[in-house]
Amino acid sequence: MKTGTSLAALLCVLGATEAFLGRVSFLPGIRNLPTDTPVARKHGPGIFMSTLKSPVPDTAQTQHAQAPTSLHVRDSKRVYLFNEGRKEDKALLGGKGANLAEMSNIGLPVPPGFIISTATCLQYFDSEPNLPSGLVEEYMTAIKIIEAQTGKEFGNPENPLLFSVRSGAAISMPGMLDTVLSLGMNDEVAAALARKSGNPRWVYDTYRRFLQMFSNVVLGMKMEVFDDLLVAYKASKEYRSDTDMQATDWEEMVRRYKEVTTVPADPHEQLQLAIRAVFSSWMTPRAIKYRQYNDIPETLGTGVTVQSMVFGNMGEDSGTGVAFTRNPSTGENVHFGEYLQNACGEDVVAGIRTPEDLTGLKAQNPQLYEELLRVFDLLEKHYRDMQDIEFTVEKGKLYVLQCRSGKRTAKAAVTMAVEMVEEGLISKEEALLRIDAKQMDFFLHPTIDPSAAKTVVAKGLPASPGVGTGVLCFTSDEAEVLAKEGQDVLLVRKETTAEDVHGMKSAKGVLTQHGGMTSHAAVVARGMGAPCVSGCHEIEVDNAKETLTLLRSGRVLHKGDTLTIDGSTGEVMEGKVALIRSTSDADFQKVLDWADELRRLRVKANADTPDDARKARELGAEGIGLSRTEHMFFGPARIDVVREMILANDKAERLKSLEKLFVFQKEDMREIFSVMSGFPVTFRLLDPPLHEFLPSEPKDIAALAGRIGKDATLVANKIKALEEVNPMLGLRGCRLGLAFPEISEMQVRAVIHAALEAKAQGYDPRPEIMIPLVSVAKELEVASALVHATAGQVLEEKKAVLEYKVGTMLELPRACLNARSLAPMMEFASFGTNDLTQSTFGFSRDDIGGFLPRYLEEKILEKDPFATIDVEGVGQLMRVAVEGVRGAEGGDDKALGVCGEQGGDPKSVQFCEELGLNSVSCSPFRVPIARLAAAQAAILHKKAHK
Amino acid sequence: MKTGTSLAALLCVLGATEAFLGRVSFLPGIRNLPTDTPVARKHGPGIFMSTLKSPVPDTAQTQHAQAPTSLHVRDSKRVYLFNEGRKEDKALLGGKGANLAEMSNIGLPVPPGFIISTATCLQYFDSEPNLPSGLVEEYMTAIKIIEAQTGKEFGNPENPLLFSVRSGAAISMPGMLDTVLSLGMNDEVAAALARKSGNPRWVYDTYRRFLQMFSNVVLGMKMEVFDDLLVAYKASKEYRSDTDMQATDWEEMVRRYKEVTTVPADPHEQLQLAIRAVFSSWMTPRAIKYRQYNDIPETLGTGVTVQSMVFGNMGEDSGTGVAFTRNPSTGENVHFGEYLQNACGEDVVAGIRTPEDLTGLKAQNPQLYEELLRVFDLLEKHYRDMQDIEFTVEKGKLYVLQCRSGKRTAKAAVTMAVEMVEEGLISKEEALLRIDAKQMDFFLHPTIDPSAAKTVVAKGLPASPGVGTGVLCFTSDEAEVLAKEGQDVLLVRKETTAEDVHGMKSAKGVLTQHGGMTSHAAVVARGMGAPCVSGCHEIEVDNAKETLTLLRSGRVLHKGDTLTIDGSTGEVMEGKVALIRSTSDADFQKVLDWADELRRLRVKANADTPDDARKARELGAEGIGLSRTEHMFFGPARIDVVREMILANDKAERLKSLEKLFVFQKEDMREIFSVMSGFPVTFRLLDPPLHEFLPSEPKDIAALAGRIGKDATLVANKIKALEEVNPMLGLRGCRLGLAFPEISEMQVRAVIHAALEAKAQGYDPRPEIMIPLVSVAKELEVASALVHATAGQVLEEKKAVLEYKVGTMLELPRACLNARSLAPMMEFASFGTNDLTQSTFGFSRDDIGGFLPRYLEEKILEKDPFATIDVEGVGQLMRVAVEGVRGAEGGDDKALGVCGEQGGDPKSVQFCEELGLNSVSCSPFRVPIARLAAAQAAILHKKAHK
Repeated sequence: MKTGTSLAALLCVLGATEAFLGRVSFLPGIRNLPTDTPVARKHGPGIFMSTLKSPVPDTAQTQHAQAPTSLHVRDSKRVYLFNEGRKEDKALLGGKGANLAEMSNIGLPVPPGFIISTATCLQYFDSEPNLPSGLVEEYMTAIKIIEAQTGKEFGNPENPLLFSVRSGAAISMPGMLDTVLSLGMNDEVAAALARKSGNPRWVYDTYRRFLQMFSNVVLGMKMEVFDDLLVAYKASKEYRSDTDMQATDWEEMVRRYKEVTTVPADPHEQLQLAIRAVFSSWMTPRAIKYRQYNDIPETLGTGVTVQSMVFGNMGEDSGTGVAFTRNPSTGENVHFGEYLQNACGEDVVAGIRTPEDLTGLKAQNPQLYEELLRVFDLLEKHYRDMQDIEFTVEKGKLYVLQCRSGKRTAKAAVTMAVEMVEEGLISKEEALLRIDAKQMDFFLHPTIDPSAAKTVVAKGLPASPGVGTGVLCFTSDEAEVLAKEGQDVLLVRKETTAEDVHGMKSAKGVLTQHGGMTSHAAVVARGMGAPCVSGCHEIEVDNAKETLTLLRSGRVLHKGDTLTIDGSTGEVMEGKVALIRSTSDADFQKVLDWADELRRLRVKANADTPDDARKARELGAEGIGLSRTEHMFFGPARIDVVREMILANDKAERLKSLEKLFVFQKEDMREIFSVMSGFPVTFRLLDPPLHEFLPSEPKDIAALAGRIGKDATLVANKIKALEEVNPMLGLRGCRLGLAFPEISEMQVRAVIHAALEAKAQGYDPRPEIMIPLVSVAKELEVASALVHATAGQVLEEKKAVLEYKVGTMLELPRACLNARSLAPMMEFASFGTNDLTQSTFGFSRDDIGGFLPRYLEEKILEKDPFATIDVEGVGQLMRVAVEGVRGAEGGDDKALGVCGEQGGDPKSVQFCEELGLNSVSCSPFRVPIARLAAAQAAILHKKAHK
Repeated sequence: MKTGTSLAALLCVLGATEAFLGRVSFLPGIRNLPTDTPVARKHGPGIFMSTLKSPVPDTAQTQHAQAPTSLHVRDSKRVYLFNEGRKEDKALLGGKGANLAEMSNIGLPVPPGFIISTATCLQYFDSEPNLPSGLVEEYMTAIKIIEAQTGKEFGNPENPLLFSVRSGAAISMPGMLDTVLSLGMNDEVAAALARKSGNPRWVYDTYRRFLQMFSNVVLGMKMEVFDDLLVAYKASKEYRSDTDMQATDWEEMVRRYKEVTTVPADPHEQLQLAIRAVFSSWMTPRAIKYRQYNDIPETLGTGVTVQSMVFGNMGEDSGTGVAFTRNPSTGENVHFGEYLQNACGEDVVAGIRTPEDLTGLKAQNPQLYEELLRVFDLLEKHYRDMQDIEFTVEKGKLYVLQCRSGKRTAKAAVTMAVEMVEEGLISKEEALLRIDAKQMDFFLHPTIDPSAAKTVVAKGLPASPGVGTGVLCFTSDEAEVLAKEGQDVLLVRKETTAEDVHGMKSAKGVLTQHGGMTSHAAVVARGMGAPCVSGCHEIEVDNAKETLTLLRSGRVLHKGDTLTIDGSTGEVMEGKVALIRSTSDADFQKVLDWADELRRLRVKANADTPDDARKARELGAEGIGLSRTEHMFFGPARIDVVREMILANDKAERLKSLEKLFVFQKEDMREIFSVMSGFPVTFRLLDPPLHEFLPSEPKDIAALAGRIGKDATLVANKIKALEEVNPMLGLRGCRLGLAFPEISEMQVRAVIHAALEAKAQGYDPRPEIMIPLVSVAKELEVASALVHATAGQVLEEKKAVLEYKVGTMLELPRACLNARSLAPMMEFASFGTNDLTQSTFGFSRDDIGGFLPRYLEEKILEKDPFATIDVEGVGQLMRVAVEGVRGAEGGDDKALGVCGEQGGDPKSVQFCEELGLNSVSCSPFRVPIARLAAAQAAILHKKAHK
């Protein structure tokens, strides 16, 4: 990244802005300090590394050295200085405390502080409302040490030491007290600070914030009480924003705040109250409920972290900055940062002044710059990853306030991972674990240029990744026509059906008002690799008028207007948005090669056509885990034959149509076998209800009747008769094959003939035939017998030998529960996690638009179970099924896989690894992600079982 | 039963005809014999009782006495005479053999025979194709004894002994060799028999049947080969039926049969081949598959039963008869039988001659009649139940060929059970177990008079028991009008919807073309106790033309034609059929009182209205397990308010409509509480998708829009928007309550207000509020919090105290799997086995008409899972859920029940008992059945765990 790009923009790209803003806006200009202390002055800024290696009296250091792993010997000790802990001490010190301790110990200049242990929290509930006896004395000893280190004094207005107080359990837990900043503040302290800093405005702003925060989190008052006072004051002054407020205004606010609250002036009393509030927050109803819900033991307790603060705006030799140890955008091994002299975080965020890159700092203070570089190096070596660092310089002395593994773009993640392996910093396994598999969409689809301007006008579900721009078009026929004329088209529908497939193929993207992540539109689009945003309830589509209303603004768009959709985020944007594309990135290929070395799970693709199959091979699929034979039924030349077959008056008529379909189907299959030579190809027998293939509009029905030479009324009646109340639970899957065995026979004949022809052409076909929607063992018995009989007959006719396998889908709870009884009739099985999720939850994927968004928003569900396997419910059934199959005779030889949409979801892939499945199968464009996720899962599994 | 009723008609009523015909038509005139033997002659017919008490040499008798229970000491023994076994020896002798042995041993005159043990079968597979060494010698010894007993000789044409040979494993198993009759037949034997009997016609008929049967089951030839020969012969002779065939014709057939088969003439060779065939039949693919499917161990093996035969048409002192020890129709303790002199079974069945009742036999042969009475007495005392006996008299000597517990009508079953308890013959427990709970419909609904003529014109699903006759009517509005005019109406619909409820109420019965056992029509009809036949695919309903086409005949019926439906059998009959009714039968009441004493499960009713509730109390329900609050929404005064509420533009408008509904709902609830005072009443919050309440026809929509003062197009659009692809899996149940909390709030307020009012009136209301369709713990958390908050608010307002419970439905796989996490938020739970069956199988109850009938017919499913709980699938989930709830804190105090339709099904009730549930709930008219079934389940459970 070149200097032209601002840090704020970069943070924005990385999604970090909110956290940054959230934190610093509460603490403008103040950073945990020591300032001008005798110790600091004695050693000078240049030697802080050695200083900080042993900044506390030997006693504490020795104690830690003596008992580095055993916490028991420290049981009677309740207060820990930072350098008395390590990051492994989370149970004792809480997550926050342990991390601060770690930073201190590896030599980072962290403002000193102490932690009251989590065990003390439990003691508190015996002594409540008093603190456990002796605790105050104990932490006062720690405060004395910190006073000595900082040269300041807690409660002394002439040289005040201010603290932040935070809760922190071993497991991060919302619902507990978070933070009180600037504790130790009172009128005298504020006056002295205002004098010393020469910046009374932020002192009083900080003071009033302290009062509000303390009143809220410690005293339980509402934030609104204070907000209302401020609003009223600004109104009276006709101020438009906080920036209009001057030092005297904030001082006045402090006065007004103090009228409504009872924050004690005594810093010691403040501290005691804050510590008690942190402990008490462990037992609020919200925290208790959260623990119950997440199975967190009550006996963990919370720790209390008390840390001194630093100031970044103490003059020209002070400042504040943010840096990344490598470029988080490109991954280049070049540090990247920004610095603002005599400033605090608020100034950076508010954009009032523009920060410079670190060359400015280098020029001003080369020694400090060198120190910073040493910090970068130290941090990368210690954490073995690129770090995101916040630092403050106070009167020439550097303080690190936070360091964490830095967020990065997909490109940077991959480049860094590859380079760090090549530098010998990390292993391949670690490198792979560092990469967020979900981000890898970046390498597979053009993405929005992060620096481009965009206006989001609506948001729907991120149904199929990729970005698509085009003119709005409301029918599939027209989409096809316009596309042929060379236009970029965006197909907009209430929802799509089988009749829209040609339109979807022609369009640059698909936008639907209804339907979830696994609606027809979503599934078909993912299969095609076409961008799709589905379930976009912020638009209203009127098919008749060919308009799209943006509900946020009420604006009505018409045919021919241009929109852009991002299928990775669900965003709908105005006009055309600039894109970037990263194809065949060498680092990415390297990562995938490593993934292939390290994974155990076989990765296949869901592919229905020869084109899909080719794409799947290119992207590394090792076979086809699901080929939906019915998808070969679409296309203008075929669909009418399918309809003729469905509407046949009797079996003889149906057989005639099936014979025509046989030719199409066999040819597609032969080509798929040739593309997938040497790899297994699983054809699933016809699954959807027949009604799905038929038109519904009277004029379409009449036209169809004309084409196939039947009476329109009879055809309409027959279509009506095939209607079902809940087609998802009706005559489909193997039920269809049992009702019309001739359809299954045709499909099996096509598979076997196709394989024999491919073989004759020198390919190595590996056919597998899969029977869908089995719930009862007898269904599989009858259906598999039909497959074997038909295949056997073809092979006998042709006097040929061919290996083929017969298996089933595990996609209904009953099948999973009784997998053991299905096992004898199957050579393989595939979890259809879409259908299994539907039936386990009782959620129709076509109708979840009505409640799923609310469920996710209100956290009734943590995740969309159609995107990520629901381990607690669906996962239990899968586990029972795996045990059932593996426990049956020869069960270990029966390949088990997943072919629902979740097969390309990293979390789900990890669960498949845990279950010991043999493969996952997903849409072709997700294959690279699944390959990476499979490797990550294998590495994690190995780690966990070492 | 009086003498006027024929035995054939009676058997027909009892469903026994088919078995009877099936057996005797294969063996016309021949019954296992001895005939004119020295032994028989010496003792004479009068003394057979003592003779048969010790009919075999002492050695065998002694051996049995020495080792009555241990089979090990008999391991080396392979051939058992009948009196060497007992009915407990099924594992050793097979079921058939053991029963024949039992009959011999209790002193019944059974034609002698022997059994080759099941263990020998396994030896055979080592010696195959030869019989195990020494076996022939061993069974020849047994044959010698039988020859001595019968005075006949196997293979001797002058005095031939004929055998039947049957397979028989410990568990009855289709797919194995069944029976070869008249083995020992050949040309010489036939000639001698023809001479001796003076009836060459049946001798040669028997001979040709033997040839055909032997060729088929032993030699593996097709039956058709022989049938074709017979057809061709009859055609050449211009015979119309077998009765035209004379002795010489059958002799000719024997000649022709022998030309195509290779049945050996040597009886000993015949026997060896037949025994080998029985053993081999154990290992046919069909038998192996059956065993795998039913978990029957292969090591059981099959036994071979070889029995001598008797003849009923040896002259005037011979004959054949059937008798019941009590009247199987009324239950009266008076024997009932029929006898035909000098005849065989075929004559009885063919109806050529009319059998007389036993007074004829009494007159002809008083001594033999007395013997028969002693047999009746002996059998009843031994089996402690009414027996159905087949007997043959050969030359004055009585032989019992079969005895079994007799089939009986519902009335007879109850009367016999009560009388036998009062006679001291059986205990109350045994009495209850004897009664088929399903048959008890007889006491609750008028039933078809068994003696009435009826013409069945179509058959559908037996959706709601009872018989209804009426004129066909195709709309609910017209049904209501005609009913008010005093006509009996039969409502005929393609399927019913919420809009048909008033028509269903007015009709004497409901007949639908579509829909399963749990379709709207079925569920609502059962709730009303109205007869219903649903899913009748043998009719085609045309609503527009108001016609019903009988597809069997193609006949078209019109409005006003009369049909009768039987909702217990699914039969649709022409015109009006005569009915009988058994109300408040004293014996039945006694049985129910005993059941109440002995059952553990509480029996509640599913009741939605005060009328339902009253009916439920009358029939003994101890509370309401499911009150579907939405059913209170129907009715002309209410449905429009409901629609207004659904179509409201905003929450304010919706609240206004809800306020009106509150009044209706509260009043219904108050009345239900008063009827059910002292018993728990469970109200389920609104469950169905809102779309179900709305009209679908444009003219109805327009009318509605007018009534509620809204724009018709807007209303139509809103209705369209509420449409779902799979409403069963859509926005319903708790999802609805979470989307529109104000609806749940209104319902909860209504429950609490109603309970308080009922309490003020002196009743004892016990409200329970149930949250439907939960799949995720958080749903229940939010929904139950809303119930508690609303209830608490009402109680606070009213300053009242009221106990109420909150619970949930367990009706989705995910809820069952995670019941433990739901437990903290529920005080009770009810399995909704309808929905649970739907989701576990992936079967929509609305659409199963398309495949369930075929599934049941082809035995893909053994039972309709919507009628009887599927223990292997749904039952597993229920078990997991019970364990989950019971394992949670306080889990034992949380009442668990079933409220799906299966709650009234005896087998399902038994499963509920096994699971340790607290209650079952079913439609009011099934309550007595459930009470009886619950008692039976408790008795069986006690027995099994003793």
